[in-house]
Amino acid sequence: MRYLSVDDIDSLAVGAAVLGTGGGGDPYLGKLMAKQAIMEKGNVRLIDLEELPDDKLVVPSAMMGAPAVLLEKLPNGEEPQTAVRAIESYTGKKAYATISLEAGGINSTIPVYTAARLGLPLVDADGMGRAFPEIPMVTFSIKGVKASPMICCDEKGNMVILETIDNAWVETLSRTVTVAMGLSSMISLYVMDGRTVKKHAIKGTISLAIAIGKRIIESSRGKRNPVDSILELTNGCRLFEGKVTDVQRDLTTGFVRGKAGFEGIDNFRGKNFKLEFQNENLIGFLNGEPAAMVPDLITVLDIENGIPITTEQLKYGQRVVIIGMPCAPVWRTPEGLAQVGPRYFNYDVDYVPIEDLAKRKKS
Amino acid sequence: MRYLSVDDIDSLAVGAAVLGTGGGGDPYLGKLMAKQAIMEKGNVRLIDLEELPDDKLVVPSAMMGAPAVLLEKLPNGEEPQTAVRAIESYTGKKAYATISLEAGGINSTIPVYTAARLGLPLVDADGMGRAFPEIPMVTFSIKGVKASPMICCDEKGNMVILETIDNAWVETLSRTVTVAMGLSSMISLYVMDGRTVKKHAIKGTISLAIAIGKRIIESSRGKRNPVDSILELTNGCRLFEGKVTDVQRDLTTGFVRGKAGFEGIDNFRGKNFKLEFQNENLIGFLNGEPAAMVPDLITVLDIENGIPITTEQLKYGQRVVIIGMPCAPVWRTPEGLAQVGPRYFNYDVDYVPIEDLAKRKKS
Repeated sequence: MRYLSVDDIDSLAVGAAVLGTGGGGDPYLGKLMAKQAIMEKGNVRLIDLEELPDDKLVVPSAMMGAPAVLLEKLPNGEEPQTAVRAIESYTGKKAYATISLEAGGINSTIPVYTAARLGLPLVDADGMGRAFPEIPMVTFSIKGVKASPMICCDEKGNMVILETIDNAWVETLSRTVTVAMGLSSMISLYVMDGRTVKKHAIKGTISLAIAIGKRIIESSRGKRNPVDSILELTNGCRLFEGKVTDVQRDLTTGFVRGKAGFEGIDNFRGKNFKLEFQNENLIGFLNGEPAAMVPDLITVLDIENGIPITTEQLKYGQRVVIIGMPCAPVWRTPEGLAQVGPRYFNYDVDYVPIEDLAKRKKS
Repeated sequence: MRYLSVDDIDSLAVGAAVLGTGGGGDPYLGKLMAKQAIMEKGNVRLIDLEELPDDKLVVPSAMMGAPAVLLEKLPNGEEPQTAVRAIESYTGKKAYATISLEAGGINSTIPVYTAARLGLPLVDADGMGRAFPEIPMVTFSIKGVKASPMICCDEKGNMVILETIDNAWVETLSRTVTVAMGLSSMISLYVMDGRTVKKHAIKGTISLAIAIGKRIIESSRGKRNPVDSILELTNGCRLFEGKVTDVQRDLTTGFVRGKAGFEGIDNFRGKNFKLEFQNENLIGFLNGEPAAMVPDLITVLDIENGIPITTEQLKYGQRVVIIGMPCAPVWRTPEGLAQVGPRYFNYDVDYVPIEDLAKRKKS
């Protein structure tokens, strides 16, 4: 157990963007919200999975929709608490703690805000270990936990409660509700007892994001490059170094879908890299050969300071390092790959772990 | 107080289609459901407004979406009861009775089904006295009753509970949910105590629909034309008699929008009639001059047997009588017209009551 301070939130936001693999939403507004709530209400208690009592209720807190919209359609600040409170009154049980479903991106900081505002501890774990675009793409869902009852709240004061037959229907109905609410909502779902959370959550991802963020922030002060530290913390590897040569983005489906091309520099001179993304970076090709693919993590970092660059921020001429990081083991199981493997995202490729791809390259 | 039998349901369905003004949904499936439930569970008690205790809960029951879809995507038969039960458990109060929100079309028979299945009485009243396409278009809404909490249930077993800041948001969110559920859902909303229902409901509309339907069915047996009886029951007037010469329909907005043209016969020879509809018949022009307009009722009847013809059934060559009927007085107030007057439906016309238009024509 430890306490999250305002300084930790800066680190958390940067580190979560690394785990966000280009998507997961710009953590900027979530960071401001979390910092303000901590300043008002005091530091947030971060508890380890082991500290969670088996029979207590854990109520996740998250933002759904297009994070960019939050910058123009500001939350009123009550939505996340309203969602947790609605779960309590709907289930007739008190929330003991909150948890992040998605440690990558904005949903790393929203639960900190909720925890601070409600005086609840935050569990040091999440349900993805990264960012994914859809509701059923959490370890809990793979393990049979129901996403509903789910609450969606908007900044105007509207609330929707969903009770569905499966988690795909939660995705369908909450997505359409969130679009109608103006493209963003604050949600609570995957309500679980402590026992279930302990069994299926990915442990330590909030601490990991903070540790990654700290290295990036510290090295920007010390002028050291943080990439090696990040790779060490995440068991990752350097996939490429180069310049952005072209970016294609299509927003018509409500997701940021597209491709980016890179031309090698330094050790990678003469080589090229292609990155395909759907909100998150999903598959990368080095000279036409797969170098990493979903569910493993692919993140583009600024070559100078290691700051992560989202798929929305990619621009011609940027000099970047592209890194790959192995995903949580649960995603490599058949059920995990069925839900988040390359074929789910319509790539005609069988999943190969990033470590094996690295070996192939060397041999 | 009286009891609704299986025979009454045949009459109710036909009469409700007259009040449905071309829309409100084909009552066919609702009729089957109501008859079957009565056969299984016994006749339904129809109570007058005055019999309703002030402090008891009335839970309306209705179908939302595209009624035509019900014929291919059959209800599982539990949805309407699930919706009422969900209101009970959400509000913590027992339902004393159910009521129709829309006596025109399929939503005349759905509440009979619900009443039979749950053993509840049905109130002899509704919230429109006809059919309208949107959730806030009920007398209760005009008088400030909140539509939420609202329940939407689908045949697969999904349920959505809405709590909104106003009734326009109920429309927006429940419409998008209903579309995602596959274009139809069974709903409960406008939960009221008996006192509120007595104040704002349109009295006797279920009996009226049954009476209209009885005349049509009886005259088909006796080979008499029922149009005069219908006009007498509804204080209506004959607007036109003629043949359908053209029909335009557009379904792209999810509503049946369009126009129909008619060429006069008999007393109307040499005259023409134009009808514009958006699900319901909204405005009719005799030789280019308005003859009736929303919120007054315009219904097209088969000239031979008085059977009402919906906007979806209009076909070239049909020989029809077009009748107009005055709406409930509440719709002619400024608040009523703001919600359902011709300008709301984008017609650049000030509302003139059908009686006044008839006088103009004669003078």
